[in-house]
Amino acid sequence: MNRVFAEVITIGDELLIGQVVDTNSAWLGQNLNPAGVEIKQITSVSDDSAHIVEAIESARKRVDILILTGGLGPTRDDITKNTLATYFGVGLKMDEKALELVRAIFAKHNSPMLDINELQAMIPENCIPIYNDRGTAPGMWFEDKGQIIVSLPGVPYEMKHMMTQFVIPRLTEYFEMPVIRHRTLLTSGIGESYLSKKIEDIELALPPHIKLAYLPSFNTVRLRFSARGNDANTLDKELNKIAEQVKESIGTFLAADSDQSLQQILGELLLEQNATLSTAESCTGGYIAHLITSIPGSGRYYAGSVISYSNDIKEKELGVSASNLKNFGSVSEEVVKEMAEGVRAKLGTTYSIATSGIAGPDGGSKEKPVGTVWVAISGPTGTLAKLLQLHGGREQIIQRAAMAGMDMLRKYFPSTK
Amino acid sequence: MNRVFAEVITIGDELLIGQVVDTNSAWLGQNLNPAGVEIKQITSVSDDSAHIVEAIESARKRVDILILTGGLGPTRDDITKNTLATYFGVGLKMDEKALELVRAIFAKHNSPMLDINELQAMIPENCIPIYNDRGTAPGMWFEDKGQIIVSLPGVPYEMKHMMTQFVIPRLTEYFEMPVIRHRTLLTSGIGESYLSKKIEDIELALPPHIKLAYLPSFNTVRLRFSARGNDANTLDKELNKIAEQVKESIGTFLAADSDQSLQQILGELLLEQNATLSTAESCTGGYIAHLITSIPGSGRYYAGSVISYSNDIKEKELGVSASNLKNFGSVSEEVVKEMAEGVRAKLGTTYSIATSGIAGPDGGSKEKPVGTVWVAISGPTGTLAKLLQLHGGREQIIQRAAMAGMDMLRKYFPSTK
Repeated sequence: MNRVFAEVITIGDELLIGQVVDTNSAWLGQNLNPAGVEIKQITSVSDDSAHIVEAIESARKRVDILILTGGLGPTRDDITKNTLATYFGVGLKMDEKALELVRAIFAKHNSPMLDINELQAMIPENCIPIYNDRGTAPGMWFEDKGQIIVSLPGVPYEMKHMMTQFVIPRLTEYFEMPVIRHRTLLTSGIGESYLSKKIEDIELALPPHIKLAYLPSFNTVRLRFSARGNDANTLDKELNKIAEQVKESIGTFLAADSDQSLQQILGELLLEQNATLSTAESCTGGYIAHLITSIPGSGRYYAGSVISYSNDIKEKELGVSASNLKNFGSVSEEVVKEMAEGVRAKLGTTYSIATSGIAGPDGGSKEKPVGTVWVAISGPTGTLAKLLQLHGGREQIIQRAAMAGMDMLRKYFPSTK
Repeated sequence: MNRVFAEVITIGDELLIGQVVDTNSAWLGQNLNPAGVEIKQITSVSDDSAHIVEAIESARKRVDILILTGGLGPTRDDITKNTLATYFGVGLKMDEKALELVRAIFAKHNSPMLDINELQAMIPENCIPIYNDRGTAPGMWFEDKGQIIVSLPGVPYEMKHMMTQFVIPRLTEYFEMPVIRHRTLLTSGIGESYLSKKIEDIELALPPHIKLAYLPSFNTVRLRFSARGNDANTLDKELNKIAEQVKESIGTFLAADSDQSLQQILGELLLEQNATLSTAESCTGGYIAHLITSIPGSGRYYAGSVISYSNDIKEKELGVSASNLKNFGSVSEEVVKEMAEGVRAKLGTTYSIATSGIAGPDGGSKEKPVGTVWVAISGPTGTLAKLLQLHGGREQIIQRAAMAGMDMLRKYFPSTK
């Protein structure tokens, strides 16, 4: 069985000074792996020609494919492009189609084009251009001594599009890739170490060609099984068998037998029932609404939200009773239930989710420390509330509370998958 | 002037398969730079001894300091520790204080200690231990031929603590560090290439010890000037002078003379005026609310939001007139202004921001294609609306619209910085 290796070389001082977190490399790992390409190393270097060449030469001793991102663009002097042309000993040529695309982008934005923008369409003579309809810098595909060197812009939105549309399909044609199959189970409400304890026997019995990755993200952990081999059918059968064993072991911690987000799963459940949803958010401050409306077509089931950051609004807009606010405080079972019921009635939806808690860093007390969060859901058969004690910084508490609220509603659905 | 260079070597398969985004490296860049240490390269390698040694040997040709993170812990066979002992040709010894700390952690969690946990307190004979009171793996400090090699756990919470408490202070003692000063200007509403054109003369005239980085993110670009020298005062004066020149060149595109986000700036402006804010979001679906409430203390100026995903709610909750919805559609100047005025009146705030648009991928038409977004702000002196034609996918349109809405309010402030 073949193994095909790649190195990711990210270029840019902003990565080295810590101004930008490199998310491109993780995305590349997530997306090259299923295509059969293993990433051997990730190297981040400065906007410096000699340093880029050193990284390229070093990587070529290790791997078959080099993916370079960044260092393209008029304000960077197109350092990567010029370095590659010099490295291969070739000149630059104007690519007419790339030029057209650059012009089209400026026309679309109604902006006059500058000379430096025109230069963006110049590419090294020995490369195949990778056209970029989301930005002005074309990507480049080089073939040299059986190795592939690809250079792409560092802007994630542009890079991802060019990888998906051009680079990955072409790599799978160029190399004889092993077959890699994945099977992902989404779990919710259980931590990584407890999960690993629960499926310990299954994990220990995995054959060497099947690997398991734990992908935690707040309240959820995705279990990704990856199998490498020659035949898709055989691998799928093996993965199915393992997935069934895992499902039996984890019971209701299974949120979905698919690689979906909680907000996608909720959307599907709501559509199936022809039901609608509203939210009343205090401590999550609109983050649940944001996650739900990130899904295309969410307008079909999501009516809207009342974000009640102040108590005043909880009272006036959500009908929370003044006495409950006074007696129990805004972070309480009584108030969060009234919030859920209030928004459901007001916006006339089938279901609702509400949150009220202390995201910190201020506002905590001995009885209700930072991380104390009440979540509630309301629906045709009643209202439920749950107390969470969350850890982490403000951002983590907001995100975990949002996931917990959505997961609570998911579990509420009677015939859930 | 001395320059001191470091390389970060992160160890772990989870980084290469994209399971984990490497945030440690950015943190190290942010925290080593102000101490005078420049990061030359970041290298991520697999849990493999030969690969780790290759990375160490390669890095030692480039830099003075190597910071290794990850690959420590019983489930990883303490790969980094054993690799380093072999690399230096030394044995392991039990460190009594490290052992005490490991025991204390197990006592705290009321867990029985296993033999493999005891082994965690073994360290290579030639290293100085870096004690870890947040986890079970001690860090290691090696001095060899004038170079420093540090190995730390990959858990961010443990690594950061050990860097701040031990490694950075000790590095600044060991090396004669240069002084590094930064100055950041936040610009908004102007693209990177136009900006670079506007400040071209200033950029070309920069002395070699001052570098400029463009850091774009949706509607904003941060300009970060970094100066290196021997005296903080002199550098600050130079940076001040340059900042003033840039400010003069870019006029109102300056959003802030600081390294802040738009939501932080808005928060400060609101607090200064003792003013409050509410939002009415349609296409941005709670994203503005989320950004604003991500800032600690935002409850002092942010009242809340009505997220009106359906027209029904625009009418009922925000007082948008049925005839405007019918005649102009929900994505129109008339409706977005009514939304802004409606939420401001309803929640009783000084200012408000409203959005209504088509985030796609569905819902576009010839007259109003995907990316058509109206944003409005309302305040004591009136209501303003603005039409945007945004590009990108759903997520980008949501993010750009949110930034544009916040920037519009920022510009509205009479005595803005």
